[in-house]
Amino acid sequence: NMFVDFDIMSLVIHVCHLNRKFTRLPHLAGSQQNLDLAKQIRDEWMEFGLDSVELVPYDVLLSYPNKTNPNYISIVDHLGTEIFNTSLAEPVPEGYEDVTDIVPPYSAFSAKGQPEDELVYVNYGRTEDFFKLERELGINCSGKIVIARYGKIFRGNKVKNAMLAGAKGIVLFSDPADYCADGVEPYPDGWNLPGGGAQRGNVLNLNGAGDPLTPGYPAKEYTYRSSLEDAVGLPKIPVHPIGYHDAVHLLQHMGGPHPPDNWKGSLNISYRIGPGFTDGLNQNKVRMNIHTNNQVTRIYNVIGWIRGAVEPDRYVILGGHRDAWVFGGIDPVSGAAVVHENVRAAGKLMKKGWRPRRTLIFASWDAEEFGLLGSTEWAEDHARVLQERAVAYINADSAIEVCLSICLSIYINASDVNSVFLKVSSPEEGEEGMTLYQSWHKRDNSTERDAPWISKLGSGSDFEAYFIRLGIASGRARYTKNRKTERYSSYPVYHSVYETYEIVERFYDPSFRRLEAVARVRGGLIFSLADSPVLPLDCVEYAMSLTKYANSIYQLALKHPAAMQQHSVSFDSLFFAVENFTVVARDFHQRLDQLDTSNALAVRMVNDQLMYLERAFTDPLGLPGRPFYRHIIFAPSSHNKYAGESFPGIYDALFDIENAVDWQKAWDEVKRQISIAAFTVNAAAETLKPVVS
Amino acid sequence: NMFVDFDIMSLVIHVCHLNRKFTRLPHLAGSQQNLDLAKQIRDEWMEFGLDSVELVPYDVLLSYPNKTNPNYISIVDHLGTEIFNTSLAEPVPEGYEDVTDIVPPYSAFSAKGQPEDELVYVNYGRTEDFFKLERELGINCSGKIVIARYGKIFRGNKVKNAMLAGAKGIVLFSDPADYCADGVEPYPDGWNLPGGGAQRGNVLNLNGAGDPLTPGYPAKEYTYRSSLEDAVGLPKIPVHPIGYHDAVHLLQHMGGPHPPDNWKGSLNISYRIGPGFTDGLNQNKVRMNIHTNNQVTRIYNVIGWIRGAVEPDRYVILGGHRDAWVFGGIDPVSGAAVVHENVRAAGKLMKKGWRPRRTLIFASWDAEEFGLLGSTEWAEDHARVLQERAVAYINADSAIEVCLSICLSIYINASDVNSVFLKVSSPEEGEEGMTLYQSWHKRDNSTERDAPWISKLGSGSDFEAYFIRLGIASGRARYTKNRKTERYSSYPVYHSVYETYEIVERFYDPSFRRLEAVARVRGGLIFSLADSPVLPLDCVEYAMSLTKYANSIYQLALKHPAAMQQHSVSFDSLFFAVENFTVVARDFHQRLDQLDTSNALAVRMVNDQLMYLERAFTDPLGLPGRPFYRHIIFAPSSHNKYAGESFPGIYDALFDIENAVDWQKAWDEVKRQISIAAFTVNAAAETLKPVVS
Repeated sequence: NMFVDFDIMSLVIHVCHLNRKFTRLPHLAGSQQNLDLAKQIRDEWMEFGLDSVELVPYDVLLSYPNKTNPNYISIVDHLGTEIFNTSLAEPVPEGYEDVTDIVPPYSAFSAKGQPEDELVYVNYGRTEDFFKLERELGINCSGKIVIARYGKIFRGNKVKNAMLAGAKGIVLFSDPADYCADGVEPYPDGWNLPGGGAQRGNVLNLNGAGDPLTPGYPAKEYTYRSSLEDAVGLPKIPVHPIGYHDAVHLLQHMGGPHPPDNWKGSLNISYRIGPGFTDGLNQNKVRMNIHTNNQVTRIYNVIGWIRGAVEPDRYVILGGHRDAWVFGGIDPVSGAAVVHENVRAAGKLMKKGWRPRRTLIFASWDAEEFGLLGSTEWAEDHARVLQERAVAYINADSAIEVCLSICLSIYINASDVNSVFLKVSSPEEGEEGMTLYQSWHKRDNSTERDAPWISKLGSGSDFEAYFIRLGIASGRARYTKNRKTERYSSYPVYHSVYETYEIVERFYDPSFRRLEAVARVRGGLIFSLADSPVLPLDCVEYAMSLTKYANSIYQLALKHPAAMQQHSVSFDSLFFAVENFTVVARDFHQRLDQLDTSNALAVRMVNDQLMYLERAFTDPLGLPGRPFYRHIIFAPSSHNKYAGESFPGIYDALFDIENAVDWQKAWDEVKRQISIAAFTVNAAAETLKPVVS
Repeated sequence: NMFVDFDIMSLVIHVCHLNRKFTRLPHLAGSQQNLDLAKQIRDEWMEFGLDSVELVPYDVLLSYPNKTNPNYISIVDHLGTEIFNTSLAEPVPEGYEDVTDIVPPYSAFSAKGQPEDELVYVNYGRTEDFFKLERELGINCSGKIVIARYGKIFRGNKVKNAMLAGAKGIVLFSDPADYCADGVEPYPDGWNLPGGGAQRGNVLNLNGAGDPLTPGYPAKEYTYRSSLEDAVGLPKIPVHPIGYHDAVHLLQHMGGPHPPDNWKGSLNISYRIGPGFTDGLNQNKVRMNIHTNNQVTRIYNVIGWIRGAVEPDRYVILGGHRDAWVFGGIDPVSGAAVVHENVRAAGKLMKKGWRPRRTLIFASWDAEEFGLLGSTEWAEDHARVLQERAVAYINADSAIEVCLSICLSIYINASDVNSVFLKVSSPEEGEEGMTLYQSWHKRDNSTERDAPWISKLGSGSDFEAYFIRLGIASGRARYTKNRKTERYSSYPVYHSVYETYEIVERFYDPSFRRLEAVARVRGGLIFSLADSPVLPLDCVEYAMSLTKYANSIYQLALKHPAAMQQHSVSFDSLFFAVENFTVVARDFHQRLDQLDTSNALAVRMVNDQLMYLERAFTDPLGLPGRPFYRHIIFAPSSHNKYAGESFPGIYDALFDIENAVDWQKAWDEVKRQISIAAFTVNAAAETLKPVVS
């Protein structure tokens, strides 16, 4: 089976080299270094033997700290004197002392400003945290500066919640409870976050819009750009990230009530929520000094093509980003190296005369860190052809976060996924002879079907525009934390200067065999999608997931039995639709078993049905208030972009409904969303029926 | 050439019979008679030999007069006594005296109410008419009842304009200037509108939404329905239509200034605009008495299928509506008969062993008169499969309005259109031996290319959802008035009780040979689209039209040279895009000439490019404020639904821009719309390029 066993014997060596090569310098989006790297990748991909490779530029809104006027947070006394300032940069790791252009920790797209006020601690800054503050603890954040710990949800959601609560600034910090594993040393002696490390990151609420100035359209030279006031998703308040050494200073003398126990992180302080400070310093305040600039900047995607031999107008895409906050040892290089090696492997096969049935597209995205900008602009630019021609998109962001798990759009045929996993060897010591599937299953076998857990795709990486906006079947696969046993968020050094090549080499994947395994999985998936005469997509799997999701959203609604009855809310139409889809999907696959695969047109027709099924779940009207999230079955949660929500329209309508101002309206919206979901599932089912009524 | 010369020898006889059969009874949407007719059509289509025929119901909002409380307009004196009332019904034409269920003239979806106030004459009620009233004549319609003559624009736009002007009711009347041809007698002695006749019609502003309660989704049993307050497009004021005999009473004693000469119709009165009355009756007012009810009602489309032999998953649709305001002699029966005879002809061919390459769908739409509801609901219901599979939609509304002209989406290959027209004989007396093309050319040869004029598709008939929302290449062909020589609007008896079978038989098409010619043209188009191995769609034609439209919108902008310069407005990006499209289209057709037509997959691929080109011109974000008008090149005019506007986004941004409140904002919007248009044209061009970069 060519596309699984493709020639990647040299991969392990190359991943190793490449990882080093890609991480010598910072590759911030918009920087000369990142353009140089783009050119290098283009040239190498051409050498590897792709049919064509191009740099594709867009001019998007980025955001950088002011080099001469640094960002920091102060404690100021009653005279206005700054008696404590947070650090301006992270201590640089050994071996990188001479590197210039390390961008200090900052929150990209923060508003400028120097707000000064009392501090309120808001735990993770989640919707439920603000509810607790306002409804149970009686603390009003309006006009205050809030401080939230990183973790649990996307930082942009924290900022949005702070704005909704009326805060005039928000400080984000990494608490050891969330960014240090027990018994592990801080880098460089271990892989925990040092106290001086801080998490960079954008704080946008784009909801899939891409470049904030050109929502819905690619940011080309001639494209109209809105004013900054009309831009999508920019926070209106200053935001800044700090490490836990600095956080202690801000938090240790606060006033106000004690927080609930589960709000206390691992900082060695006596926790108070605020507002204000209680010791002799109770006239002290916190001042944010933020001078970050928004700036339209040119970015570059690298796009490589292998023309399909039989169906050149069917595209399978493997894309991952290239830009990094600093060295990007894990994010994105562990992913970019995988793409690079897959291109190399494909090139080798081509030199032996191979050419895939369908067209393969490889993408090195720029400016993912600034809001998935490179991938979204390209998706906007080519929406029409992608709509018509894209079979699947496989994402290649960070390959390793530690323990083995996998996130996949469940539409990617599980048996096919499994067959890929069955053909790859476990890279773990002591698991010689074990397949990757067995290794995975051993670590995470929680499902009722005695199979490893496959997660819903959320967002926070470049598949978003492809999957959620355009309805292209998408998948991702990587080593990630064990849902059940590992409590910390992402990985400790995430988006800090300590994401180096060495941290991977010393701790995450010393043999680079995990990277190799991920490369084989991602490669296996795209080669299977590009080469199988009948697309390896499984509608019955989709039906099973729909059933699960329908049950789960119904259970959520059932928390309001009286209201359900009073407003005559019924989920019958949705359950009928899911049942209809299930029957139709089963029939479809039965007919598929009888397919005469020598009939090119007949194969094309069922493949069109398979390909367009995911498209059928999208609705051009989008979700309420989120026009670029068009998938009716999956969307990033409105409360945490990183998480995927199923039946998001219904979910959002039900959210906090007991506190709605107008119950009639609120339950009407639930009914409307059920109706839309039911219709969409029926409409998707129709695409799988025999093509003539 | 089978699909042009298909067996319609019997057509002329059948059209004649059918026309009589379909017009014996009123067939108002939602009535038992119209359901009975649907069943009859279903049964006959099955007999003719279609593969399947189904009745497809939807439950949509319709609107009927209150049977026990009729609508009328009064003049009331200062005591409140009604001293004149308009007639409650039209005099019934000879031979139809015993017919029950003739719905009296009314404005469907009018608000209920009995407003009473002074009257203001607003000419045609166009945007420019209200501008003239307010800006030049200093007349304020706020709080008044306005009276507008029918004609020039869609009546719903008149009502919208009246609402925007603050009127609290609007009376619509048919002026002889617009509804009587010189030297022609009123029906039954001629084809002019009698003084007691009035034009029914809906007064919605749906902007393509379909059923007002379920915008974007099919009105099925389980579908969520909005409240009437949230419904799309319902007028908030009473509206009522009257004939010119009644209009004279309302208009003859009005006060206020004299109107401009071109506002005077042909009523034999001394014109005044109002408000109020000047003679001894100056305390008189006008009272509207409107009791029309909105009501969710079941409607039925009839949908018939012929499975394609080679590509069953490619659909060619011929659709026309079945519902009529009363007898529908012209509208819709002259179209419905054509569909019926095409089905019969196709059935005959099938019995001889023929089966089209692609699937043919025949549709008899319901409730077109109530806002294109049947066709739009079906489009919404099947949007996913239509998006994937529909090759083209040919509309079959009224076939004859008198003189020969043709309206076509210009994307339908002109040479192919011409070849159809060349194969049909002229039905005109004295043109024996002449082709239909020659006959057409003789009457209307105004274009610079020495070819007959092909109009832009506007709206007002059932192609709207298919073309403007879904981006399916669409066409219509019928006998219509000569743009240059005939001044009256539509045809005199339009939507009156006088649209009988007899008016067609006596005046419009005594031999029924014009109907036959239209049947051959519409049939020729769908058979060509369904049977040609390579789709007969011409991208170079499209490019030429784009050039024309770009020049024309540029000329419009040039009326503001100073503002253009001040706001740096450039059309360069649009002209570059059109040039790019032109080059790409030419290359595409050159490659097409080299196509190996024996390679099924290769043919499928270019056909996909041809089919999806029209789709590529649509934008899921829609036009500003009109989410269901998604075509960036064509939309119904915002000021007259009947008319097609090219580059409608730019056009609307430029409209009346000299009176914009905020010039900066207004010109920014022009720039944004130019950018969207340029991008869309480039994106469409991309779909025609070789499929791999």
